[in-house]
Amino acid sequence: MSRYWSPGIARLTPYVPGEQPQLERLIKLNTNENPYGPSPRVLQAVRDALGDDGDGLRRYPDPDAARLKAAIAAYHGLSAAQVFVGNGSDEVLALVFQALLKHERPILFPDITYSFYPVYCGLYEIAYESVPLTDRYTIRAADYVRPNGGIIFPNPNAPTGCLMPLQDVEAILRGNPDSVVVVDEAYIDFGGVSAVTLIDRYPNLLVVQTLSKSRSLAGLRVGFALGHADLIAGLERVKNSFNSYPLDRLAQAGAVAAFEDRDHFEHTRRAVMASRDALTLRLSALGFEVLPSAANFVFARHPAHDAATLAAALRARHIVVRHFAKPRIAQFLRISVGTDQECDALCDALADIVA
Amino acid sequence: MSRYWSPGIARLTPYVPGEQPQLERLIKLNTNENPYGPSPRVLQAVRDALGDDGDGLRRYPDPDAARLKAAIAAYHGLSAAQVFVGNGSDEVLALVFQALLKHERPILFPDITYSFYPVYCGLYEIAYESVPLTDRYTIRAADYVRPNGGIIFPNPNAPTGCLMPLQDVEAILRGNPDSVVVVDEAYIDFGGVSAVTLIDRYPNLLVVQTLSKSRSLAGLRVGFALGHADLIAGLERVKNSFNSYPLDRLAQAGAVAAFEDRDHFEHTRRAVMASRDALTLRLSALGFEVLPSAANFVFARHPAHDAATLAAALRARHIVVRHFAKPRIAQFLRISVGTDQECDALCDALADIVA
Repeated sequence: MSRYWSPGIARLTPYVPGEQPQLERLIKLNTNENPYGPSPRVLQAVRDALGDDGDGLRRYPDPDAARLKAAIAAYHGLSAAQVFVGNGSDEVLALVFQALLKHERPILFPDITYSFYPVYCGLYEIAYESVPLTDRYTIRAADYVRPNGGIIFPNPNAPTGCLMPLQDVEAILRGNPDSVVVVDEAYIDFGGVSAVTLIDRYPNLLVVQTLSKSRSLAGLRVGFALGHADLIAGLERVKNSFNSYPLDRLAQAGAVAAFEDRDHFEHTRRAVMASRDALTLRLSALGFEVLPSAANFVFARHPAHDAATLAAALRARHIVVRHFAKPRIAQFLRISVGTDQECDALCDALADIVA
Repeated sequence: MSRYWSPGIARLTPYVPGEQPQLERLIKLNTNENPYGPSPRVLQAVRDALGDDGDGLRRYPDPDAARLKAAIAAYHGLSAAQVFVGNGSDEVLALVFQALLKHERPILFPDITYSFYPVYCGLYEIAYESVPLTDRYTIRAADYVRPNGGIIFPNPNAPTGCLMPLQDVEAILRGNPDSVVVVDEAYIDFGGVSAVTLIDRYPNLLVVQTLSKSRSLAGLRVGFALGHADLIAGLERVKNSFNSYPLDRLAQAGAVAAFEDRDHFEHTRRAVMASRDALTLRLSALGFEVLPSAANFVFARHPAHDAATLAAALRARHIVVRHFAKPRIAQFLRISVGTDQECDALCDALADIVA
């Protein structure tokens, strides 16, 4: 605390990302990174943007990221005016909270969800109410049809991995014509059905996606939002009052290429889904209860073993998973889906620990 | 305007960056980019971070950018706790306004200055008073010793290029022990003396710098702030409530390398300064009044030719400079220092136009 800080800064509770340990030979299953690398076309595009002498780096990037917006629009069958891009979906979400979710009434999001949401509310002084998940850790659409200043939820939800059917998403949209409904689809490509197809019918719908998971580009920091041009225009106003050039030249070039290589995308996301299903079976065989996941991670608990103890025992074996010491979920582990070899090593270790 | 926007969004007046025209064979002297490319070591570092297969890109970057902070701290003789990094100095400045410059009293900055400052004030609802430059377009330190909620100015100032002597900076610091004083040193390496040496004596001093100008890395988006650890801690709280990973892996790797190659830095900044001085002489010979510049641009007006008309005539010859249609400076052109060949082409064109 310093007397020089703006009022309110001392009251913030910043988000804590999963650690990036610098250990050698670590099996890292704690931050939902993709076990497979990005498309070779991404590499080539970044190399091309770099050039032989790096001369391109001395120029500012396109502040509007026009090529990238065009690539995303083409991929999703939208116009460029329906696309907003930012420095990872975390930046996109922050600007969404500021531009679209600060109203008189409290906004709504699940009690168990992406833990950055209440942090953004703290930063922008947005009131919120958290809506309990059901006993089966799912979102009940009817719980979101009530007065509110806006709604946001991940689909599939994090850290549960549970998917909400598209008709339930639509029920929330239909029940809230006066509120912006943000569907945070960071994990949608691992088995969910995107709400993007509803954009033309619901001017209150904003879909947020990222290249960090299914496109294997967490290191490049690119996220985006899709919705009615009026919502996008609000985001652009805030972005252009904050930072003209949030996406560097290399990130823009690489991200365009990521959307152009559909084969790599299909191949790797299917491999992750297959590994997830195998991992789920094996964890179940070890006695774990595994929530049904449509993401690149599973959320699992063991009836006879404390989750924090399990996480510590795994870490001692150089396997890192994520544990949230929070109400309702303190007995769960969130385990990212790695390669089959990594999943096998995890299950072998757990078999040994729970034996 | 949309009923879904948060209140206040419609009132924002976003910043307008200099255009990035896609014309071929353009002489681009409008956004103060460095005419020379970055260090070859930057290229190699980015290539190394990319790897042979891009596998590094699938991992999140270090959220704390520890290696980069260490490199900057070592360069400036500070500790890492005195260094904050962000996605270009524009993002750093935005977070500075939010974390350190929102107080009861209005903040102060010059009437002619970086035009993003009032935009940030709009975004964060910060009251401000603009303090007129002298008739010679310089900042008078005594004007800033009065009650305020914080002070910010570029040194050298933009778009004038005029440098304030370090003793004047210190007079402002000494006269404002209860306010944060932010010295925005985007252009300091082109002939100014940095206020970094004052950090250990003034806990209210924050210095902001960028790699976009003297390090030739506008395309990579890296800026930083230096100051007392308490000020940095306030910035970190806001950053970690906004975006965990604002700097991607390639930008972090390239930026570290930029600080390691002192020879390239010295060589290119001296070349720019020599070209600036030659450009100033030639413009003066053409009848222009050129303000004394310590930056990589000059601010010049011709007593007999309208600035907007000159800018249009240059553009017709594929030379782009920046013109601000604003009070007190509407008759000036801001001209980035290019290579000697580019400066010659500019002066040849101007000689022809004003003849």
